[in-house]
Formats: sequence, C-alpha cells, structure tokens
Amino acid sequence: MNQPLATRDQLLREARKVFADKGFNGGSVRAITSAAGANLGAVSYHFGSKEALYHAVLASVWAEAGEAVARESRREAPPLDRLEAILGVIFMQVAAQPDLGRLMLRELAETRPVPPPIREHLGRLAGTIKAILAEGQADGSIVAGDPQLLVLSFMAQPFHVLAVRDRLRDVLGLPAQEEAVFERVVNNAVAFARRGLSAPGRSA
Amino acid sequence: MNQPLATRDQLLREARKVFADKGFNGGSVRAITSAAGANLGAVSYHFGSKEALYHAVLASVWAEAGEAVARESRREAPPLDRLEAILGVIFMQVAAQPDLGRLMLRELAETRPVPPPIREHLGRLAGTIKAILAEGQADGSIVAGDPQLLVLSFMAQPFHVLAVRDRLRDVLGLPAQEEAVFERVVNNAVAFARRGLSAPGRSA
Repeated sequence: MNQPLATRDQLLREARKVFADKGFNGGSVRAITSAAGANLGAVSYHFGSKEALYHAVLASVWAEAGEAVARESRREAPPLDRLEAILGVIFMQVAAQPDLGRLMLRELAETRPVPPPIREHLGRLAGTIKAILAEGQADGSIVAGDPQLLVLSFMAQPFHVLAVRDRLRDVLGLPAQEEAVFERVVNNAVAFARRGLSAPGRSA
Repeated sequence: MNQPLATRDQLLREARKVFADKGFNGGSVRAITSAAGANLGAVSYHFGSKEALYHAVLASVWAEAGEAVARESRREAPPLDRLEAILGVIFMQVAAQPDLGRLMLRELAETRPVPPPIREHLGRLAGTIKAILAEGQADGSIVAGDPQLLVLSFMAQPFHVLAVRDRLRDVLGLPAQEEAVFERVVNNAVAFARRGLSAPGRSA
C-alpha cells in the first residue's frame, strides 16, 4: 500500500532537482520519471500533468517555510522581535533547501504569469509581515511608511542571499556555503533589516 | 567602413535579448545572427565565439553602471550621501535595462563558475562601496561591522527589485513597472538602506 505514496514523493524530489537544473521548459518528464525509477506515465497518474507537478514542487518548497513563519508571527513578542525571528526562519529554509534558490531564479527569469503556488505562499508571507509592520507602526517602534514597500525591503535580505550565496566566494571572496560564514551573513542581514525597519531614535 | 561596427552592435543587442530569454545554453548563435540580420559566421568573426559574445553582453550591461558609480563615488559628500547616490544610479540602470534582470537571474541559476565580466564589474562595484563604508565607519556615521557583509545587505536592495520588479503586481498587487510606483519603490529602498547602514543614534 506504500508504493504509490513513495513514488509520488520520489517524483516530487527528483522533479525539484530537474526543474532547478533545467527550468520548467527544459526539465523533461522523461528525466524526472527515469531519476525516480518510475514509468513515463507516473507523472500523469500522480499529478495529472507536468505543470501540476511543477506547481506541487513550488508549493512543497514554500509550505514548510510558511508554517514556520506563521508560528513565529503568533508568538508573544514585540513586533521587531517577531520580524527578526521570521527572518531567521526564512534564512534557515534558504540554508536547508539547496535547490530553492535556483528554482526561484529560473522561475523569476520567465515572462509567463507567476505560478499560483508562488503567488499564494509569498502573498500570504507578505500579508503576515505587513500585519506585524502595521502593529509596530502603531506602537511607534517601526518607521512610518507604506508597509507594502517595507515588506519589499525586508524580503530583499533573505532573497538576495538565496540568489547569490553560491557566487559570493567568486565575486566577494566570501565563502558563504561554509556554515560559520553563512551564520555571519545571516546575523548581519537580520541586524541590517532591524535597523532598516526601526523608527528613528528607536534602533537598538 | 561603418558596416562592421554596426553589425557588431546589432549582434550585441540581439544577443542580450536572446540570452535573457533562453540563457547562455539555450540561446543559439543562429537565433542571434538571424535577429541581427547577419550571417551565421558573424559571431565568430566579431567576437571569436558564442561564449566571448556572452561575456561581451555581460560587460556591456555593467559597464555603464560601473562608470556612473565610479563618478558618484568621487563626489565631495559625506559617505552616506555618496552611498545613497550610488544606490540611485544602480536603480536607474535597473530601470533603463529591461533585460538586465533576466540575464542576471539566468546566470545566477547556473552552477558553472561566475563569468569573468560579472566577477570584475561586481567585484569593482563592491570594492568601491566597501571603501566608502570604511570611511563612514572611521568618521562614525556608519554602523560598525564587517564592510564585506554590509556591502551584501546594501546590494540586496537594488538586486531584489531588479529580480522581482515584474512580479510585484501578481504577488503584492504593486505595479512596479509603472514609473510612479517604481519611484516610490526606489525611494523606500534607498531610505531603508540608509537606515540599515547608519550608526545607531546617527540615522537621519
């Protein structure tokens, strides 16, 4: 009884690698099923189509981050502390999912509409952060301004690291794949974002 | 006598579009020469190889930004003001070069070594910013910390906008392709970066 589930998970895992390497158009169903040790019809059987499999991959890479962020957002803590914790959670996902960066970069380079799972997960994430920003603006701890735009500057910190981490050794001489260096990168980014969001005179 | 130069420029311009659409591997010499109205041998004749043409494209998209940044960096102004001006210049390049984002995203999604023009141009840009950061740390206007890591947080602001601009309508309901909205995005990012870099108690 476990075989169908196992095959579905295998397909998801291999599809994530193949789409990260080749993009949606370049990644073939044949490459995915063959890596998963499944027959060519397995993608249709388990997901319905190559596009549905791709959407399932995107949903899977963001689902865990989304749950962790939602947990942090409900903690009893000042808004800036909760935002700092959320940033930490996002960075942990970035570190834990080596294909996430390339998947997102390839998707962003496309000109087609944003796939629904990205729109939903990132839209929800942005909504959570905006609500905390508004709370902090109300209590005076967070700088005034359009929360929509502040979300953008906030998300720039993990997104940029996600995008360039593997290239920092070549461009800046910063081996950010190494755990100790990555930790310094994260601490710096979190502190930078905190100062960027803090109301003048309130920065820690 | 003008023909060879014109063809070379045509090839550069079409190659930029083709590589942005398809990436280096997916972009064919045939597609580039045909769009440029040149014969199939024109790439070898003018650049030596497809890879050399690709490097010339990358150098051309960063050369103008590099010159503008170098000019701003030599102005007589406090470090934070110069950094703000540099950020403005980078954002102007982002706005003016619609293919720049997709070119960089596709390149970043690759696992091969960073192409020399990116290493050189971004390395030089990082060096310029690091020098101004060190100046500001010496005069007390810029927060303490590893300038290498501060460069990263600083560059995150334009990079993120470059990467996601065309998707902000779908994900955040923010039509950042519109000039007035883009201007608000830039002003917010510049102010965020300034707060992020300012020494505590010194933020404007």
